[in-house]
Amino acid sequence: MSLLYDPLFTTDRFAELFGDRVTLQRMLDVEAALARAEAAAGVIPASAVGAIAAQCDAAGFDLAAIGRAAGLAGNVAIPLVKALTAKVKVADAEAARFVHWGATSQDIIDTGLVLQLREALDLLDADLARLSTATARLADAHRATPMMGRTWLQQALPTTFGLKVAGWHDALLRHRARLAELRPRALVVQFGGAAGTLASLGSAGADRLADELGLGRCALPWHGQRDRIIEVAGFAALLTGTLGKFARDWSLLMQTEIGEVFEPAAPGKGGSSTMPHKRNPVGAAVVLHAANRAPALVAGLYAAMVQEHERGLGGWHAEWQPLAELLQITAGALARCCETVEGMEVDAQRMRANIDITRGLVMAEAVMMALGAKIGRLAAHEQVEEACRLALAEGRHLRDVLGEDEFIAAHLAPPQLDALFDPCGYLGSADRFVARALAQGGGINPET
Amino acid sequence: MSLLYDPLFTTDRFAELFGDRVTLQRMLDVEAALARAEAAAGVIPASAVGAIAAQCDAAGFDLAAIGRAAGLAGNVAIPLVKALTAKVKVADAEAARFVHWGATSQDIIDTGLVLQLREALDLLDADLARLSTATARLADAHRATPMMGRTWLQQALPTTFGLKVAGWHDALLRHRARLAELRPRALVVQFGGAAGTLASLGSAGADRLADELGLGRCALPWHGQRDRIIEVAGFAALLTGTLGKFARDWSLLMQTEIGEVFEPAAPGKGGSSTMPHKRNPVGAAVVLHAANRAPALVAGLYAAMVQEHERGLGGWHAEWQPLAELLQITAGALARCCETVEGMEVDAQRMRANIDITRGLVMAEAVMMALGAKIGRLAAHEQVEEACRLALAEGRHLRDVLGEDEFIAAHLAPPQLDALFDPCGYLGSADRFVARALAQGGGINPET
Amino acid sequence: MSLLYDPLFTTDRFAELFGDRVTLQRMLDVEAALARAEAAAGVIPASAVGAIAAQCDAAGFDLAAIGRAAGLAGNVAIPLVKALTAKVKVADAEAARFVHWGATSQDIIDTGLVLQLREALDLLDADLARLSTATARLADAHRATPMMGRTWLQQALPTTFGLKVAGWHDALLRHRARLAELRPRALVVQFGGAAGTLASLGSAGADRLADELGLGRCALPWHGQRDRIIEVAGFAALLTGTLGKFARDWSLLMQTEIGEVFEPAAPGKGGSSTMPHKRNPVGAAVVLHAANRAPALVAGLYAAMVQEHERGLGGWHAEWQPLAELLQITAGALARCCETVEGMEVDAQRMRANIDITRGLVMAEAVMMALGAKIGRLAAHEQVEEACRLALAEGRHLRDVLGEDEFIAAHLAPPQLDALFDPCGYLGSADRFVARALAQGGGINPET
Amino acid sequence: MSLLYDPLFTTDRFAELFGDRVTLQRMLDVEAALARAEAAAGVIPASAVGAIAAQCDAAGFDLAAIGRAAGLAGNVAIPLVKALTAKVKVADAEAARFVHWGATSQDIIDTGLVLQLREALDLLDADLARLSTATARLADAHRATPMMGRTWLQQALPTTFGLKVAGWHDALLRHRARLAELRPRALVVQFGGAAGTLASLGSAGADRLADELGLGRCALPWHGQRDRIIEVAGFAALLTGTLGKFARDWSLLMQTEIGEVFEPAAPGKGGSSTMPHKRNPVGAAVVLHAANRAPALVAGLYAAMVQEHERGLGGWHAEWQPLAELLQITAGALARCCETVEGMEVDAQRMRANIDITRGLVMAEAVMMALGAKIGRLAAHEQVEEACRLALAEGRHLRDVLGEDEFIAAHLAPPQLDALFDPCGYLGSADRFVARALAQGGGINPET
Repeated sequence: MSLLYDPLFTTDRFAELFGDRVTLQRMLDVEAALARAEAAAGVIPASAVGAIAAQCDAAGFDLAAIGRAAGLAGNVAIPLVKALTAKVKVADAEAARFVHWGATSQDIIDTGLVLQLREALDLLDADLARLSTATARLADAHRATPMMGRTWLQQALPTTFGLKVAGWHDALLRHRARLAELRPRALVVQFGGAAGTLASLGSAGADRLADELGLGRCALPWHGQRDRIIEVAGFAALLTGTLGKFARDWSLLMQTEIGEVFEPAAPGKGGSSTMPHKRNPVGAAVVLHAANRAPALVAGLYAAMVQEHERGLGGWHAEWQPLAELLQITAGALARCCETVEGMEVDAQRMRANIDITRGLVMAEAVMMALGAKIGRLAAHEQVEEACRLALAEGRHLRDVLGEDEFIAAHLAPPQLDALFDPCGYLGSADRFVARALAQGGGINPET
Repeated sequence: MSLLYDPLFTTDRFAELFGDRVTLQRMLDVEAALARAEAAAGVIPASAVGAIAAQCDAAGFDLAAIGRAAGLAGNVAIPLVKALTAKVKVADAEAARFVHWGATSQDIIDTGLVLQLREALDLLDADLARLSTATARLADAHRATPMMGRTWLQQALPTTFGLKVAGWHDALLRHRARLAELRPRALVVQFGGAAGTLASLGSAGADRLADELGLGRCALPWHGQRDRIIEVAGFAALLTGTLGKFARDWSLLMQTEIGEVFEPAAPGKGGSSTMPHKRNPVGAAVVLHAANRAPALVAGLYAAMVQEHERGLGGWHAEWQPLAELLQITAGALARCCETVEGMEVDAQRMRANIDITRGLVMAEAVMMALGAKIGRLAAHEQVEEACRLALAEGRHLRDVLGEDEFIAAHLAPPQLDALFDPCGYLGSADRFVARALAQGGGINPET
Repeated sequence: MSLLYDPLFTTDRFAELFGDRVTLQRMLDVEAALARAEAAAGVIPASAVGAIAAQCDAAGFDLAAIGRAAGLAGNVAIPLVKALTAKVKVADAEAARFVHWGATSQDIIDTGLVLQLREALDLLDADLARLSTATARLADAHRATPMMGRTWLQQALPTTFGLKVAGWHDALLRHRARLAELRPRALVVQFGGAAGTLASLGSAGADRLADELGLGRCALPWHGQRDRIIEVAGFAALLTGTLGKFARDWSLLMQTEIGEVFEPAAPGKGGSSTMPHKRNPVGAAVVLHAANRAPALVAGLYAAMVQEHERGLGGWHAEWQPLAELLQITAGALARCCETVEGMEVDAQRMRANIDITRGLVMAEAVMMALGAKIGRLAAHEQVEEACRLALAEGRHLRDVLGEDEFIAAHLAPPQLDALFDPCGYLGSADRFVARALAQGGGINPET
Repeated sequence: MSLLYDPLFTTDRFAELFGDRVTLQRMLDVEAALARAEAAAGVIPASAVGAIAAQCDAAGFDLAAIGRAAGLAGNVAIPLVKALTAKVKVADAEAARFVHWGATSQDIIDTGLVLQLREALDLLDADLARLSTATARLADAHRATPMMGRTWLQQALPTTFGLKVAGWHDALLRHRARLAELRPRALVVQFGGAAGTLASLGSAGADRLADELGLGRCALPWHGQRDRIIEVAGFAALLTGTLGKFARDWSLLMQTEIGEVFEPAAPGKGGSSTMPHKRNPVGAAVVLHAANRAPALVAGLYAAMVQEHERGLGGWHAEWQPLAELLQITAGALARCCETVEGMEVDAQRMRANIDITRGLVMAEAVMMALGAKIGRLAAHEQVEEACRLALAEGRHLRDVLGEDEFIAAHLAPPQLDALFDPCGYLGSADRFVARALAQGGGINPET
């Protein structure tokens, strides 16, 4: 947790959710639920539940002291259980005997993490829904807004801003599907005791604990099998890759020399008093920052999956902070994308003007196609290529050069030629693609 | 492709599948299918199909020349299309005009890759099925084979080898589910033309091409949206993490000082003539190698998702070799796991003997539990802790120390004490967990 | 900063050094030095220095408010300068005009970071010195302590514990050399103004600011050239890889079944009341955790080097937290290594006993060599190989099997045979290697 | 090795250097040198050297067969030594007994790799020298070429193209220094035998082998200490990060809408017949590709440093292909940078024109400074800010708006105002910085 960086890189709720206090609270939630589940199963006396649950409030614990003790013990749960037991003992010495009954510290830490993940996935899904609605609206609004399509950072052929945004939208729908699929694998209880056999407890417990917490049951403990958890990280990295692509796109479009879209303005945001023309894409910086860090974070997490035997050494430790960070920056990036897409300023006029920057050269393919239909593709190709050379060399508009060419004029009359230089006439299936993309999300404007 | 390394790190089929020739062939398969689809749609003359398809055989192309030209052009498809066109032209100049009609090089390269991925996923799924069968059998065979559970690389409490293997099995079932879920997202056609609008082609084509190739249709081209492809990489890395965990486990169990399981022996495999006691875990080395490389490879791929505009610069290039490598080493690791688990030699006697290495200390918890039921947990704890200290200090077996303690003897009679030192009596839910794990896969020995 | 995790994963000083308050203080140190340097150069009035410097105390700033404003502005320096100016203004409105004169926010943030790096490198070097002293002592103390050398996790041939530790020592000397080499590249001032030209300031300043801060001067600003900073990260990752290797070694040697070395015991450290035999390698867990995370962190940092133009977008942001984290966990790992090596418990008796675990097979090469000198290598090889097979099959000691073989007895008399099974007789150059390693560090016991 | 991809992503020599044949040849070179060194030391008979050396030619070996056998044995050296021995035996059975005497396979593979690294570092250094010469020339040629400085992808203040290139140059000098520093650590022999003790050989050998190969000696074997090798990888990744920054810069400058610099044209390079205006930055794509892959490759290599005991399991295997790939793509990227910088087309006119795109707003700071000197900074700030707002709102040039403002006109006469809008008047220390950068490399045009 960082006062300086959290507001820039994550959301308030994610900063809190993976902060010290909530992390500890979720472990305490597991301890309380464990007592309830075991009492219900007759494993511990029902009378112990109240005394235990009453102390499961993080506000009553000294985080710094627990952290220091964890530095020796090797994880937070060990000193936490010790402190919890001591607190319960003050009120009810008998109940204190049943704190953490049959559990190992990893049961508490993993299940506590799963509770954090549940909230994190809910929040991410809500923002994904918000963003896919925003992209659907934006795509629909600009179905007929022509702009240059760019490949290899070069102008290629015209497209529409609607199609560009529909591509973003389409990817978001896939991410929502992925999130829904991984939920039942990730949101399960961990409960196996010291060696994963629930040896001191008998067979009761894991399922009841799952039910108590509203988590999924699982066939057996997964202390050493980390795929459930790390799949969430992979999802976050994949999503962040997509968001990074959005931010790259809009930051490039915001370049002073292109100026086609802008992040929404806000007081104190990205301006410069001495450089009044600047409009720093702060949102894009945050998202690109996340897209840079997420792959690295997930790489460490995949590598940490190689954990030894029943419970490993070091690999598990290597999950805690990186997984939290990854989800925090993913949430931060997603929130910035929501704000940006919802408030995006689109300069359709500048988009149109930028199409003309090459003086018609970007329409050469359209001319070639039309001419090709009349004189054969190869001949058309040669004619148009020659005209392009001339236009470039003389700094003239291709339409003008073509218009002066008698051979071409013989096949393409002036109004025909004019039409060929209208980018809206060469948008192919752009509109249809947008319609299909919007339709599949139960979108706002399905293809009819 | 490496003659020296491929047999060690991948399978023959995967070496071939992502080798130069098949890579080129898949692109040619797309060109042929494109001609068929476009002829069926009336976009190109039906008469061109035969002449084009006839040349779509990689054997007819000079790979080195295409590679050299790609070094200038920026990708393989550009010189390939040029060479294909030239070859078609020889036979049928008219047909040559319709080669690659309306497509951009990324359409061909991406769709060719998807064809490779289809086969790769089929092969991986087959080996996952094979491995999950092998783990189910092994887990079932060893449901009653006690061994030490180990945490933090230290002996903890007894478990069974069956439970350990059931944990592997359980993870594999999740991986099969993941693979099934991502297939429809990944195995789709790419067809959008130069700027993703199918500008020169009109709206026909993409769906027909998909049908022709047996791939999924998609709402719109995904040239710049790489999540479909990179999700496959994430899956491979996640799977490889799981496989690495298996290999870590079995290589640790193969240590000379532990000696509980062994990779199947084979002539020329892992032995040393001057060190006759050695049995190098070659399979584990290969799998751990993959588990080391996969996270790094996928990190690059996630990072490469940030591709500019309609088609990006450099990011797309950064997918080709790493994705192929990642799938190759994943397949190699999976194959080694299959061989190893199917032929694994299990030394149940050594497992049993290793439980006794601490002279009964690993059973202290069991004694504490039994004694606690009689004299209270805290008192039991103190008594047993004291006995453990004594046993450690004097290098004696804990059972003997306890047996001499009159207080303890008063509560636990010799046969009771003997029973408490039988690890099979302290396996908790191990058998039940195995049964549950096997049941969910439609397993061979479900819980009754 | 995390109360829960910092004591486990880093040192107190590193937690503080890269925490919010010191981070801000270092930026303020730069602002104060900038005022002094510019006054000395006559760029701003000398009278402004005192008023500015007086406010450059982080204690006077509201970190949370600055963090929130940074969320909009895009970095911490922007609101910090604003807040600093406001504070100066209260005391001296004229001086307030000269706060941050001619600087851009990246000048302040980068130079502040360099000040943090200077302290970090000093601290790391001190601990490297401490650790290399500890390894030199330990290596020297165990020059004559035989233990099994292990390759591929299998017992191979005998070595000495001294040689193993000398290998650690040798690597540490290289790391100290690297640190010394990169210092002058990394510890330089950043000062270029908005576009790196010091446009509004004229040519004075950068060198004076460097001198004022005791940092190196540099030819030109390096806002977009991040190699100076990221080289430090590469060093940290390389060092952490070495430390991880140490921790892997000692944690494997601590396995219950091997038991040759132990981390120093401490109350509350790694023990388990219910598993009295356990001695969790908490130090190793921390170091291995760092060795897992460091590669991923540095991967993100290398990737972030691709920063656009004069000052980039997102890449710079992606340095802040990962670089701090990387150095924090490196320091934590290094400190754990120091503690562990300084207090390492070595069980030379167990080392000796483990050499015998294979009943003499690990000495087969020694026998082969001695026999080969008499009957030829090939014949010796066959004879010994056969004896090994027999020894393995019958569970007998190789020396006994060989002793009963008349052919072998004819060439190797019993005392000779006994000598061949003394591992101390087959240590090759181990002692000499240790001497060489210790000598080069100006070590305690150079080869004579 | 890939016929399709190598010409795009690496150089011919690097493709060969790390290809199968040269890899094998370098191992054979080590075997031959080993025989010579051991004969000179009297460890093996001098008569064996010729027979052994005569067979150490990779052309005589069946690479595919060795690869297949390596698949079982676990590394290439095992079957190679077997095959070499068999070949020597045909000619001289006695000599065959001394092949690979006292060595372990890792000795051969590691030392063979070091030989490859020596050539690789030589080649990289040569291209670094070439590139730093090219950047020095380009920087010098454009010391007076004004262009927009851009930060956050927005136009900021003017700079010079010379200063931008000088920043590239300056970084290259640091990389050359790094390379020189790591050479003696990396280019050392590996020779320790099965457990690193040279047990069967006595103390002779390692130093002689080093001398024989022209490599550095080292204190002791480093089988398990991989920092020597991985430092090279870190260097390559750091360098590639710098090269990626160059390519990002020039590819952004090549955007159709900016058009300030271009990669050198070549037939078949990056053009498109249907999109005649396009000039794909193929070189940048290759370099950015490398900058994407290098961080991931090096992350795996850092992670692989955690190798167990005397010689590890899997980590070593994970070095082979990634290290080769990393150096190959680094070399490819470096070569593309050389070609590009040497042949870079610079459109100084377009650079100048782009400065005017904001109608003078980028010069607002200059005006503010000048006005501030007369009326105070704050008042100047307010005046100019207001004028900027007006200019933006009315789409007029800032100079015109200011010129009409009576208050401003009272302080800045028209010629003064004109001068303030000359970007060449606001370049600060740009020229001085270039001079300093060029001077330090013993450059062509040092500051006087």
